[in-house]
Amino acid sequence: MTTPDAPALPLRPELADQVPYGAPQLDVPVLLNVNENPYPPSEEVVAGIAAGVADAARTLNRYPDRDFPALRQDLADYLAVESGVRVAPEQVWAANGSNEVMLHLLQAFGGPGRTALSFAPTYSMYPEYARDTHTRWVTGRRAEDFTIDATTAVATIEAEQPSVILLASPNNPTGTALPRATLEVVLEAAARIPAVVVVDEAYAEFRRAGTPSALELVDTYPHLAVTRTMSKAFAAAGLRLGYLAASAPLVDALRVVRLPYHLSAVTQAAARAALSYRDVLLAQVADLRAQRDALVAWLRRQHSAGRPVQVAESDANFVLFGTFADRHAVWQGLLDRGVLIRETGPDGWLRVSVGTREETQAFQDALTDVIAEQEQG
Amino acid sequence: MTTPDAPALPLRPELADQVPYGAPQLDVPVLLNVNENPYPPSEEVVAGIAAGVADAARTLNRYPDRDFPALRQDLADYLAVESGVRVAPEQVWAANGSNEVMLHLLQAFGGPGRTALSFAPTYSMYPEYARDTHTRWVTGRRAEDFTIDATTAVATIEAEQPSVILLASPNNPTGTALPRATLEVVLEAAARIPAVVVVDEAYAEFRRAGTPSALELVDTYPHLAVTRTMSKAFAAAGLRLGYLAASAPLVDALRVVRLPYHLSAVTQAAARAALSYRDVLLAQVADLRAQRDALVAWLRRQHSAGRPVQVAESDANFVLFGTFADRHAVWQGLLDRGVLIRETGPDGWLRVSVGTREETQAFQDALTDVIAEQEQG
Repeated sequence: MTTPDAPALPLRPELADQVPYGAPQLDVPVLLNVNENPYPPSEEVVAGIAAGVADAARTLNRYPDRDFPALRQDLADYLAVESGVRVAPEQVWAANGSNEVMLHLLQAFGGPGRTALSFAPTYSMYPEYARDTHTRWVTGRRAEDFTIDATTAVATIEAEQPSVILLASPNNPTGTALPRATLEVVLEAAARIPAVVVVDEAYAEFRRAGTPSALELVDTYPHLAVTRTMSKAFAAAGLRLGYLAASAPLVDALRVVRLPYHLSAVTQAAARAALSYRDVLLAQVADLRAQRDALVAWLRRQHSAGRPVQVAESDANFVLFGTFADRHAVWQGLLDRGVLIRETGPDGWLRVSVGTREETQAFQDALTDVIAEQEQG
Repeated sequence: MTTPDAPALPLRPELADQVPYGAPQLDVPVLLNVNENPYPPSEEVVAGIAAGVADAARTLNRYPDRDFPALRQDLADYLAVESGVRVAPEQVWAANGSNEVMLHLLQAFGGPGRTALSFAPTYSMYPEYARDTHTRWVTGRRAEDFTIDATTAVATIEAEQPSVILLASPNNPTGTALPRATLEVVLEAAARIPAVVVVDEAYAEFRRAGTPSALELVDTYPHLAVTRTMSKAFAAAGLRLGYLAASAPLVDALRVVRLPYHLSAVTQAAARAALSYRDVLLAQVADLRAQRDALVAWLRRQHSAGRPVQVAESDANFVLFGTFADRHAVWQGLLDRGVLIRETGPDGWLRVSVGTREETQAFQDALTDVIAEQEQG
């Protein structure tokens, strides 16, 4: 678009200087940058997915079922096992990644003349969803420990009058879970506007014992939507299957704005196959949780520039740590040693995903090395 | 949303009375209502798709390649074979159905304060794309024979000042192709605004000998986008793979508004597998074209209410015919005989998809029956 003979295209002015969103996709031995599950599906799971897709492919000349009732039933069944909360299939919605679920939410409840609110630091895609739907984007602040103060949240909600409130729990990139009491205060404030409250539980399966899921409140608050994904706990980031649970009227609103046949027969079949292996796939989650706790403990024993490394409490499969006077130098030092993490979050902090034991060890070795080098420098 | 205890949800007011888009998905022996390809993939193709998906599933824990260069290369190669026009992979874009390709186009070039223009009667999803992106929607008129008059088109473009012009060729539901001369006049008028011209060639592979593809003009006009789909000629409606060819700068604009990782690894793999069987899959297209021509000829020999049945010229895998004083009664009469077609298009007209020879025969028998019954009534 900057070449001398660039054609005159009516690109929206707010997009003129934007670059496509996304972390660098680099070819590095240890990839701990995008919170992927490090364990690929077993050959048993691969075969199950292939068989499910083959079945679907036999009628691939036909459009998929627009309302995918079988997949919604399977997702409802899974949520009941995972969280103890039973919702009806009509309370479940799914799309190509949580991304598209969020787009549907903002298309239905946000849009021009409306406001979406979150509390920073939080997931860096949220403002893109707002931009893509012409929704005004506003952020309140999280406290120093990355929690949300209920009184501050209510004041912000009342001042900004959002129609959509986005709360990640655990929060990305900080790993911070949202306590039930805070969520209830936000839900009550939102009801008075009214606003839809979206709790983004993309990483919920990694929460520590005792941390609740917002699913427990879905049947109490019809303006609550709890989003989930198969990308993380199900080790299926390549499948792009995000979903949510909410009241049936809220889900019905999303059906109006979805593009017809948005979820392919192939995606529906592959997701159902993966869900049928939930015991196998989720067995890794407990291991990743234990590794996460060990990584947090290890990081807390480290020092940099004479101070202990700070580590955010994490209910996710990643850990935010810092602070470094020059975080980019630390990130680059790790990359030079074959370990890619993410330069994201507040100034001075870095985020690392929990990998396999070998990958986590490689990260620890590299970080020890980088910190030592910096002390010498 | 209309129950007495309906929750207060901040649904956008323009969506309040809307129902989800889509033709009825009824369980009927002969489905000729949504222009699907009647031939399911062979077991060879099914096995190829399953093998491709199995390969992709082995790294399903990782996010897919955001820019899918291999699929874009395969699509470019296919277009070169199909149309004789060679574009670079950087000139190809793809998404979950042409639906999502259109959404990306309107997100980048339409939006609040902007206008999208088409010429009616045309595809009934277009206004939904405009609604979903808050783009003003305007239609000019097609002539009595469903062609677009170039002079009228230019006058409409100059009056309405659209930023996006959508032209289906062949048009849905009429089957009408857009002559190259008309398209060039529209492209010149669009360049003066400037507007992006989108030629929707979802059904292009079914065009009659001598009908050109707009692909031939892609390298001349950087504001031209030609959309295609694997749903029809590739018999893969269940796959949801739409794509386009355009100038590289136009494609780059779409990369900014796409949701990251919008195209799953499973979709990329299944599409590449299906494309590798293009010779097998496209062999049916010639057969469907011949059947379409025979169906048009047969319909033109029929009479209803003492007048010959009118039939629109068709370059697609469907035929628009009429007119009937009560088209709904004809539609219902066919449905009662196990044949589902589509009640769409201008008043009095009906659209039927080209099926297998047996399905087409069942339609012809049922229509003969329905018309005879009406003559007696």
